[in-house]
Amino acid sequence: MARIVMKFGGTSVADLDRIRNVAERVRREVEAGNEVAVVVSAMSGTTNQLVGWCQSLSPLHDAREYDAVVSTGEQITAGLVAIALQNLGIEARSWAGWQVPFHTDGAHGKARIERIEGSELVRRMGLGQVAVVTGFQGIGPDNRITTLGRGGSDTSAVALAAALKADRCDIYTDVDGIYTTDPRMVPKARKLERISFEEMLELASVGAKVLQTRSVELAMKERVRVQVLSSFQDLPGTLVVDEDEIVEKEIVSGIAYSRDEAKLTVRRVPDRPGVAAAVFTTLADENVNVDMIVQNISEEGMTDMTFTVGKTDLARAQAALAQKRVDIGYADLLADTNVAKISVVGVGMRSHAGIASTMFKALAEKGINIQVISTSEIKVSILIASDYTELAVRSLHTAYGLDAA
Amino acid sequence: MARIVMKFGGTSVADLDRIRNVAERVRREVEAGNEVAVVVSAMSGTTNQLVGWCQSLSPLHDAREYDAVVSTGEQITAGLVAIALQNLGIEARSWAGWQVPFHTDGAHGKARIERIEGSELVRRMGLGQVAVVTGFQGIGPDNRITTLGRGGSDTSAVALAAALKADRCDIYTDVDGIYTTDPRMVPKARKLERISFEEMLELASVGAKVLQTRSVELAMKERVRVQVLSSFQDLPGTLVVDEDEIVEKEIVSGIAYSRDEAKLTVRRVPDRPGVAAAVFTTLADENVNVDMIVQNISEEGMTDMTFTVGKTDLARAQAALAQKRVDIGYADLLADTNVAKISVVGVGMRSHAGIASTMFKALAEKGINIQVISTSEIKVSILIASDYTELAVRSLHTAYGLDAA
Repeated sequence: MARIVMKFGGTSVADLDRIRNVAERVRREVEAGNEVAVVVSAMSGTTNQLVGWCQSLSPLHDAREYDAVVSTGEQITAGLVAIALQNLGIEARSWAGWQVPFHTDGAHGKARIERIEGSELVRRMGLGQVAVVTGFQGIGPDNRITTLGRGGSDTSAVALAAALKADRCDIYTDVDGIYTTDPRMVPKARKLERISFEEMLELASVGAKVLQTRSVELAMKERVRVQVLSSFQDLPGTLVVDEDEIVEKEIVSGIAYSRDEAKLTVRRVPDRPGVAAAVFTTLADENVNVDMIVQNISEEGMTDMTFTVGKTDLARAQAALAQKRVDIGYADLLADTNVAKISVVGVGMRSHAGIASTMFKALAEKGINIQVISTSEIKVSILIASDYTELAVRSLHTAYGLDAA
Repeated sequence: MARIVMKFGGTSVADLDRIRNVAERVRREVEAGNEVAVVVSAMSGTTNQLVGWCQSLSPLHDAREYDAVVSTGEQITAGLVAIALQNLGIEARSWAGWQVPFHTDGAHGKARIERIEGSELVRRMGLGQVAVVTGFQGIGPDNRITTLGRGGSDTSAVALAAALKADRCDIYTDVDGIYTTDPRMVPKARKLERISFEEMLELASVGAKVLQTRSVELAMKERVRVQVLSSFQDLPGTLVVDEDEIVEKEIVSGIAYSRDEAKLTVRRVPDRPGVAAAVFTTLADENVNVDMIVQNISEEGMTDMTFTVGKTDLARAQAALAQKRVDIGYADLLADTNVAKISVVGVGMRSHAGIASTMFKALAEKGINIQVISTSEIKVSILIASDYTELAVRSLHTAYGLDAA
């Protein structure tokens, strides 16, 4: 017997047939003797409609009212899933976030869970009642409903699993697990049996968006074993676990890519202390997030500075830097949106040399030019021309021995 | 300055434009210096969709889950109306029934309001904040959301007006007031400036369904002055008030009709004690509501018994009586669905003779045969062949001097 939290996203509860399918999946866990809590998202499309209504009534709407409106989506699903379970003869009841309660801070629209009172749920689960809980929401210090921000249902599930001391948090989604890379791009991509929290975080932040980053951070902190699996197929998923639980560590576990970044180069800027600060303070003041940064060696007292920003922030970054051109004292500002970031991720890198050189060799063989390089403890990222994305990802997948047999 | 509860039904908040229109109406009351609480229904169509989902997942669904699902409709509207008000610069906040709270009994799906804690709302209204409250719902002793049953939003509004000691409860709807009869049928129908609670109850129960009966009963008990008026036109409505507030009482204030009833005649039944009980106990056991009842004089120890039931109950009534045919000992059971009930209502009847004779004379002049007659203190109802409905209503409208000049 185990205690399990099962989380179903918007596409998994998109209509009544899928809600019946969810109930069937829950039934199987109950009949296997498990204690089950279910966390549900809004039916896909619902949240967007509710958000759209708020926005069209007032672009600068009160976040507290937004929360009151948008939180209804999960309340509907929770009640419907409870009804579908009861219809299968499974004892169940729905819980809104304010009923459990999920205590959050007062940051309406992007609240953080502070404390979950799980004792009543645990008591009822012990008596065989399935708890169907609304994801994405809680109650703030003002006794009003708060939402956690988009994608917050994963975080709700992980936080609930921690509060209930659950053995596992199963995240049902429209993919069947975590792959070594995007299987739509690389047919030889393999599904991973296990992946560490750290690797999952690096993969998520560079484009393999299966789990919300915040939920992985929380799972890592609270040591909640997370499983990612498909709502629609009956296949084992991928376990996201502590590094210690992975016996046979692969040196590289995945290749991620992202086309969401743009490259900016500040040309011929004086190479003296304080210039980098001037550039990046200007961007920070505009709330522009900077990712990779490189600076060339100095020539005649001048240097070039290259960095990447999100494509959606590009126009804002350009405008801000143009305004400070005289202060910063640069000659030219070049932008390139035709770039892709490729990242190789693996906890095994910590104890293995030669990871980066394998990468550079594989890309050189295909004639792919590397524009920017940045590394972290378990990740090497490069920027290349975006036309070469597929070729680069496939070549690296092969070079690191990740191809399926 | 007055304290006002404004209630808007489903068609009044059916889309974003209408919600903006509601906000405009509220603004006018606020700018006139009034303290305002707004009670809203779900956007029209929403409740039916939610109910449909519950039913198709399980025809015998848990009423507690039904309430959790269906109550979201008003929560959406309340938040959207608050946003629309804020967008006009009016301070406002939404309140779910559980937040106010509206304490109800535990009869999920058809709960009754027991107590409303209005002090916080009164305090905020005094500071100029508009309270936007979900109609139709509250919180039960089990700390779960309850709904009041269909049409319950009128009752929510009247109960809130009583709790807040409001000067008036304005019910905005898609008609602009209470008429002497159905204006679609009688072009000369007049809008009433005032009508008493008792008259409103009699009119509502016979087909002029503008206000939910329960809300009128509550308004009468709590002495809440109710105004019925249009959301879409800028016209004075009809005040529903205590009889004492009506100085110039009209003898007859309205003519109502209903085609929702069917006539049943039990032919040649033994005229002895206990036979009526046998007939009506049989129907009561089947939950069939009986309205008008007449019994002819006896002939050779046998009599006929005629009564009306709702058309939707007719098949059940016939089946139940057929099964008890031998016990009751009747010769024949005749049904007629081709009937209409016409009612003349007015508190002035109490002190005026000749109301019924005016009716019979007017109908006789048009050759309309009266099949059944029943009377109450402030109402005379008759059953006629339904083909004559319009003719009867128009003739009576003229006979009682109700025609507009």
